[in-house]
Amino acid sequence: MTKIEGIFTPTVVPLDEQGKINEGELRRYIDWLIDNGIYGLYPNGSSGEFTRFTVEERRRITKITIEQAAGRVPVLAGAAEANIRETLAACETYCEYGATAVAIVSPFYYSLGPESVYENFKEIAINSPIDVTLYNIPMFASPIDVPTIQRLAEFDRVIGIKDSSGDISSMASMIHAVRPNRPDFVFLCGWEPALVPMLLMGCNGGTNALSGIVPDYFRRLYEATRAGDFPTAQQMQFDLLGFFEAIINPFEFPMGLRAAIAQRGFKIGNSRQTMGEEQQARTEKIFDTMAPHLTSMGYNNLEEFRRP
Amino acid sequence: MTKIEGIFTPTVVPLDEQGKINEGELRRYIDWLIDNGIYGLYPNGSSGEFTRFTVEERRRITKITIEQAAGRVPVLAGAAEANIRETLAACETYCEYGATAVAIVSPFYYSLGPESVYENFKEIAINSPIDVTLYNIPMFASPIDVPTIQRLAEFDRVIGIKDSSGDISSMASMIHAVRPNRPDFVFLCGWEPALVPMLLMGCNGGTNALSGIVPDYFRRLYEATRAGDFPTAQQMQFDLLGFFEAIINPFEFPMGLRAAIAQRGFKIGNSRQTMGEEQQARTEKIFDTMAPHLTSMGYNNLEEFRRP
Amino acid sequence: MTKIEGIFTPTVVPLDEQGKINEGELRRYIDWLIDNGIYGLYPNGSSGEFTRFTVEERRRITKITIEQAAGRVPVLAGAAEANIRETLAACETYCEYGATAVAIVSPFYYSLGPESVYENFKEIAINSPIDVTLYNIPMFASPIDVPTIQRLAEFDRVIGIKDSSGDISSMASMIHAVRPNRPDFVFLCGWEPALVPMLLMGCNGGTNALSGIVPDYFRRLYEATRAGDFPTAQQMQFDLLGFFEAIINPFEFPMGLRAAIAQRGFKIGNSRQTMGEEQQARTEKIFDTMAPHLTSMGYNNLEEFRRP
Amino acid sequence: MTKIEGIFTPTVVPLDEQGKINEGELRRYIDWLIDNGIYGLYPNGSSGEFTRFTVEERRRITKITIEQAAGRVPVLAGAAEANIRETLAACETYCEYGATAVAIVSPFYYSLGPESVYENFKEIAINSPIDVTLYNIPMFASPIDVPTIQRLAEFDRVIGIKDSSGDISSMASMIHAVRPNRPDFVFLCGWEPALVPMLLMGCNGGTNALSGIVPDYFRRLYEATRAGDFPTAQQMQFDLLGFFEAIINPFEFPMGLRAAIAQRGFKIGNSRQTMGEEQQARTEKIFDTMAPHLTSMGYNNLEEFRRP
Repeated sequence: MTKIEGIFTPTVVPLDEQGKINEGELRRYIDWLIDNGIYGLYPNGSSGEFTRFTVEERRRITKITIEQAAGRVPVLAGAAEANIRETLAACETYCEYGATAVAIVSPFYYSLGPESVYENFKEIAINSPIDVTLYNIPMFASPIDVPTIQRLAEFDRVIGIKDSSGDISSMASMIHAVRPNRPDFVFLCGWEPALVPMLLMGCNGGTNALSGIVPDYFRRLYEATRAGDFPTAQQMQFDLLGFFEAIINPFEFPMGLRAAIAQRGFKIGNSRQTMGEEQQARTEKIFDTMAPHLTSMGYNNLEEFRRP
Repeated sequence: MTKIEGIFTPTVVPLDEQGKINEGELRRYIDWLIDNGIYGLYPNGSSGEFTRFTVEERRRITKITIEQAAGRVPVLAGAAEANIRETLAACETYCEYGATAVAIVSPFYYSLGPESVYENFKEIAINSPIDVTLYNIPMFASPIDVPTIQRLAEFDRVIGIKDSSGDISSMASMIHAVRPNRPDFVFLCGWEPALVPMLLMGCNGGTNALSGIVPDYFRRLYEATRAGDFPTAQQMQFDLLGFFEAIINPFEFPMGLRAAIAQRGFKIGNSRQTMGEEQQARTEKIFDTMAPHLTSMGYNNLEEFRRP
Repeated sequence: MTKIEGIFTPTVVPLDEQGKINEGELRRYIDWLIDNGIYGLYPNGSSGEFTRFTVEERRRITKITIEQAAGRVPVLAGAAEANIRETLAACETYCEYGATAVAIVSPFYYSLGPESVYENFKEIAINSPIDVTLYNIPMFASPIDVPTIQRLAEFDRVIGIKDSSGDISSMASMIHAVRPNRPDFVFLCGWEPALVPMLLMGCNGGTNALSGIVPDYFRRLYEATRAGDFPTAQQMQFDLLGFFEAIINPFEFPMGLRAAIAQRGFKIGNSRQTMGEEQQARTEKIFDTMAPHLTSMGYNNLEEFRRP
Repeated sequence: MTKIEGIFTPTVVPLDEQGKINEGELRRYIDWLIDNGIYGLYPNGSSGEFTRFTVEERRRITKITIEQAAGRVPVLAGAAEANIRETLAACETYCEYGATAVAIVSPFYYSLGPESVYENFKEIAINSPIDVTLYNIPMFASPIDVPTIQRLAEFDRVIGIKDSSGDISSMASMIHAVRPNRPDFVFLCGWEPALVPMLLMGCNGGTNALSGIVPDYFRRLYEATRAGDFPTAQQMQFDLLGFFEAIINPFEFPMGLRAAIAQRGFKIGNSRQTMGEEQQARTEKIFDTMAPHLTSMGYNNLEEFRRP
């Protein structure tokens, strides 16, 4: 089995002027990510605005991603749909497409408690033909708490969790609770500002939106951490903090991310969610916002970041 | 034009043992609601678990509802879809079906600020072939603040708002801000515990989940308030408070609601979201939970509330 | 016994240039409030910045207030101190001073649950020589929930509650839970934007910071509501909404309040908490901010609001 | 100057049966902490329930602590009082007593924004005769954000910050923002579940309530981290997580802490804040709650933890 570890990019979806998936550009972007050292791909995540696509479009995005990756890197496919039955149908489809595993966000809109979150994933775990990673993102969806993760880790099909809470004590508690019985269980940190500390506390990798802008930086950060080069890792983490704030804070997610990737020379196009005017204006200045951070991060040729 | 006022029931969807829409029972339930005096119907709301159905199912629920209402009461159809284009397609379809208006929840999952909420509804307002009511439910979706409502009220297509915040100062602020320029703008209170005070402060009615259990009670409460019979309205509101807590608090919404409606003799079936065991156990005792409140509310024949 | 009802002003404390209590100005301000129709006084509340004074100063403020009121209106004295023993000492002192009752805020800094909140007030209720009103202000202090209020209402010494939550369903639930057994229990609404609806649902009055700026307005609003003149009350409430936002939102409480009262011609002086520069600048323009609201509220002679 | 680094114990205050400070026991407890390897003492913190004592008592607690420490370890004295003037008076007194520095919590009760938090500490920084550490505890007091810390670090008198937010990205941002210009600035982590990661990211130590129960454990954890023995530090952090949950979560802070210290053989007595019955009952079983965690943490002689 392809091991899920290292940094995965939750990919954004390039759209054309009619708001349709720009398949060619998506394929070109995937190649670029792989060429620049990313460890894996994660379509249909929050960065991929999965809720703004139709069922058919989510399938198409996954298919394109798996085809284009062509086995070079693992693909973790976001498979959350309107209900358990539809989610399982997506699991089956993505299994057929050749996904490495699926990632399923906890139910959202309604706020569910631990028992119902457990029942939801239990039913998926029992019936999925493909390995499942849980996706905990409490700012957007029902939280998956530590005891629930511990119970869900009893199912072989549940092989890991992506956690975007940014809460290091919660992440450490998960690892401490689950790893003794499931040494293979995968913990992925989805919150850049805590990435190095979480890797140090035992995470196997991360699914990090910003790796879609600077995949090479994330590869080096991950390798430095794994190699025990702590001074380098710490400094890279410090520099990442400012970059994260610059790309994330002034925008409704993932608008800053889309704008920054566009600057790398990809025709990302407009999101399906129209932005307010002020936010739109800020995206147009994203190069200026990014520049000082990129310099700190060691990028000398800033022209690589203004090719829209 | 059919005026939107009075109490609308946000209808739940009866499901059969395979989890499919139970059309016959939905039709029978709609008839019962109308026979018991409800002012209008609101399919595809939060009570209707719209996020747990497919696009095609949401259309079918709307179609059945409008057909069965057959002009006896207005139908406010929930039309929120994955993105603006899909939402507008639903608006067109529901217009063809003969809906009175559509209700569109503010974007959810991602948390949008006022500017983007405005842009979202503006685009819908400009392009929708049918009247639109905004749906503000800050506990589940991006909030629609008072200045945004005021700006959106400049579009003729935006004819009202359903507010489920329960915040009376926010509701009063809305009314105060919008009504001088749009005396026809409709304000519907979606939060039972504040219903009478909000009607007194100027709401035109409510969209109230509990009216799906006791439609006649809500009709009487509304009529008493409109007639200026304040002592009756106040007492009915007080009794409603306890009933609301009994049906809502022990459950993840709308599980208690579904269980209570089942007790009235409708084959509601299980929700597509599996409940935890404790919650399931509580639904089985819902008659006992409801009974003292029903007695306070003046129901003498409690057998009407245990016919599952 | 003097009945606690109608609108109480939670008084601010005028300070001189050394930051000391300006006794003369406090006495003059109290006279003005009484002359303008306020129903009662409430020193040592949140408006009175009780936490920013020493134990001795809080006693002096209370003493001055009671002396100056001289029986013309009831005085509800804020008596919360560092712990129960100190609070009871304040209760004894304020009893000797002749306070009508004391008001005691729920414990703050630490966030206590219902059981500990109950134990706290129970111990006070048993030992206080003077009637006690509970003070619920969940944005600043441990919340006092409805079942706790119901249990505390079993003590004769607990005669009422001031609620500044602004949550009308919570307030209605309290009234519904307590009044049947304690018809004399006093409910005071401390949240201006919900004042009229809360009076309509059964409150006996309010403790409203803004009444310290326009005591006559609050008297008229209260009288209109009590007289059943609902159109007037509703309109006054609508106008109050904008005034509240203008005085409260741009400032850290109670800086806008202090600035506005200063405009009425009282030497309020600077708060002991230094403001940031932007906030300071906004206070200097408070007349301009207030003016359009005052006009809506029926004040023709705006010169009365710029006499600093 | 005595360097502030390593683990400081925020000391609880033993009370006698009349609720008065038990001076003898406090002195004995301080000796025990020092004998067991703690790096410093922090009276009048949240663990020390500073808000529940009078001004005079806070001074007395500080005096006893400094006297008893007798220069063996530094003392960081909590000096927050009702307002800036009173706080500065405490700073002067604690300077005379020989405190190493003072720690001042951000203003609480009222929620202040960054500008006013800055003004508050600026005035203290300019006038204090003793070094000041900021105390950021957003769950109880106005947050001190990163830009504000950066600005306050321009004052020589401000020598560090104790952060109890538990937010590792915020802590890392602080360090990254401040250290380049103030390499001597001290960062103390006040949140046990994040202690090792925060030390790894650059903190100089911690102020950790649980060190009042197991000072030796915290010394070993700190030394392992400083020595670069990462496997030991990681394992100690994992074990600490469960211990923290056991002592903190079932209680209103600091009731579990007080109960656990009592088990070590100190006459801690009852807090001045009466607990609810359930919480009281739980404190009586704290040995059973602690025991499995203590075993994991390597304590073989559990009798040392049941000597009440």
